[in-house]
Amino acid sequence: MKKYNFGAGPSILPQEVMKATSDACVDFNGIGLSLMEISHRSKDWQVIMDEIDVLFKETLGVPEGYSVIFLGGGASLEFCMVPYNFLEKKAAYLNTGVWAKKAMKEAKLFGEVVEVASSADANYTFIPKDFEVPADADYFHITTNNTIYGTELRKDLDSPVPLIADMSSDIFSRPVDVSKYGMIYGGAQKNLAMAGVTFVVVKNELLGKVSRQIPTMLDYRTHIDKGSMFNTPPVVPIYSAYQNLKWIQRQGGVEAMAKRAADRAEVVYGEIDRNRLFKGTANEEDRSYMNICFVMNDEYKDLEKDFLEFALGKGMVGLKGHRSVGGFRASCYNAMPIEGAKALVEVMKEFEAKH
Amino acid sequence: MKKYNFGAGPSILPQEVMKATSDACVDFNGIGLSLMEISHRSKDWQVIMDEIDVLFKETLGVPEGYSVIFLGGGASLEFCMVPYNFLEKKAAYLNTGVWAKKAMKEAKLFGEVVEVASSADANYTFIPKDFEVPADADYFHITTNNTIYGTELRKDLDSPVPLIADMSSDIFSRPVDVSKYGMIYGGAQKNLAMAGVTFVVVKNELLGKVSRQIPTMLDYRTHIDKGSMFNTPPVVPIYSAYQNLKWIQRQGGVEAMAKRAADRAEVVYGEIDRNRLFKGTANEEDRSYMNICFVMNDEYKDLEKDFLEFALGKGMVGLKGHRSVGGFRASCYNAMPIEGAKALVEVMKEFEAKH
Repeated sequence: MKKYNFGAGPSILPQEVMKATSDACVDFNGIGLSLMEISHRSKDWQVIMDEIDVLFKETLGVPEGYSVIFLGGGASLEFCMVPYNFLEKKAAYLNTGVWAKKAMKEAKLFGEVVEVASSADANYTFIPKDFEVPADADYFHITTNNTIYGTELRKDLDSPVPLIADMSSDIFSRPVDVSKYGMIYGGAQKNLAMAGVTFVVVKNELLGKVSRQIPTMLDYRTHIDKGSMFNTPPVVPIYSAYQNLKWIQRQGGVEAMAKRAADRAEVVYGEIDRNRLFKGTANEEDRSYMNICFVMNDEYKDLEKDFLEFALGKGMVGLKGHRSVGGFRASCYNAMPIEGAKALVEVMKEFEAKH
Repeated sequence: MKKYNFGAGPSILPQEVMKATSDACVDFNGIGLSLMEISHRSKDWQVIMDEIDVLFKETLGVPEGYSVIFLGGGASLEFCMVPYNFLEKKAAYLNTGVWAKKAMKEAKLFGEVVEVASSADANYTFIPKDFEVPADADYFHITTNNTIYGTELRKDLDSPVPLIADMSSDIFSRPVDVSKYGMIYGGAQKNLAMAGVTFVVVKNELLGKVSRQIPTMLDYRTHIDKGSMFNTPPVVPIYSAYQNLKWIQRQGGVEAMAKRAADRAEVVYGEIDRNRLFKGTANEEDRSYMNICFVMNDEYKDLEKDFLEFALGKGMVGLKGHRSVGGFRASCYNAMPIEGAKALVEVMKEFEAKH
């Protein structure tokens, strides 16, 4: 039985990427050594670091004046690195969910935090539209896709101050106008790589402006200066990102990824809206293409567990929704083929026919 | 031709560990999904996290009252996390090389740092023996093995204050009396795993005593409370550590690793001392079993490059010494078989015969 992995992250990656990474763990580039045991100072590895810099910048369209670095620690570590590097007095945050709140919490250790808007009262089912960003804020922080609630911004905001975006769960799923951002970052374990590597795209001229002393490893300049190799980088996770970027380019780049995402979303949301058993949880115009959240209609609430089991029996893995929303979440990251979305729809139809 | 990887790190791992990790990247536990794409909240992964905790504690002999956690960011990130969590007023550091110095540098951002002794004037060729640790220091920090200079402590010091050790490059190479330490940490990419995961063994009662507020991700308690899964952990690197711990246990544990290390060291240092072309660089009683550093005797200095090429031609990979010592460094981590040490000796003998 063909399995489709709808897990929210770590999550589906292209088969070719997993195969290439697995192969390199036995023999890297045919050099007779595993990728797991090679020095990060070796020429063979430096080639990968040089190429991934080009691939990442090309694929996302990173303009001059920005650096791309790869770190460990996950996006959660960035939640404190961002204020460490940028917050002198005041920062603005848009509260669109748990991850935005976590980012805000860390910033409060470093200065004043202004919450410009929040959808907390509606359990984050929408992304606030009407808000003002204080012109004297050091930066404005947003979370572009909210995995738990299934909402997504899907456009590049205008901001009067440097815009910093956590794009952990929708990076490389659509074209982004990087020039509108001061920084973009994310854990790579959804659309880009295996878990264990964080990407950071940062506008160089914004760095070095805070008055505090920054521990070496928490200072973005350290990693920019050393090409992400100030210390030993997470070699194998970076390699999987490298392979995935090559895969994205082979498919046609972020434009192709955006088309795939829209096609999957149309198929699955279409069925959610049609099927009398289910309903979506997020505000329609804010629906995420990455994490499609839905629940049983009230009169069928009792069938929730049955549907999960039925779907799992048909090869649909990782459909359980986050506990704070309940129901189901079909995460459809870059590597999810349209066949996966269609297979899920078939399962939803079959289940409807049974009830 | 059989290759032996003498690289200083990321470095040799057992073939079985690399094979098992590679296999899991295609199909993990026969579940039809790759280790690279599974949720860290899945039952299959939780089993690994539960087992690695037991395996690590059993193998190293971690007593009650200590926690073991796995983080990202490398030992370099610990250089600031240690003072963040433990330095209230004053900390003592033993300066045995570049890594010790880097650790000291970060601590200075948080309080007073006392360098109890240093071998910097002798290019770190020995480990200082006569020093006094201030009784009012919050902790005493040491680096048990100095990869660049080939010196190693290889015994558990008595300290009047909590002893904190960076064991990045000799963890699991000998039995350690963990009860003598307040904390042991290290990057895993030498004796334990692929690059991308850091291990921390910490005495619980020492935590929570500093008055400063600690960012969530830099607070050891965060990771202890959540079993290293406060955020997405580096899944595949942790899995390689899990496989390696099982391998160490199959070989007979750290006692067997210590025997292997002593045997290798005897063979290689024996040849260095015998061979008229070479000489060791480290003080004899401080010689590292992990990183065997040697240079050409003065009258053969010109042959350095020749020897490196000759050895590489015979399958000896990664022998070039660090630029600050020069010459050669044969790193002999846990996975290096005695055959590797013997093969290197043969190459040294052949080269001597030619000159």
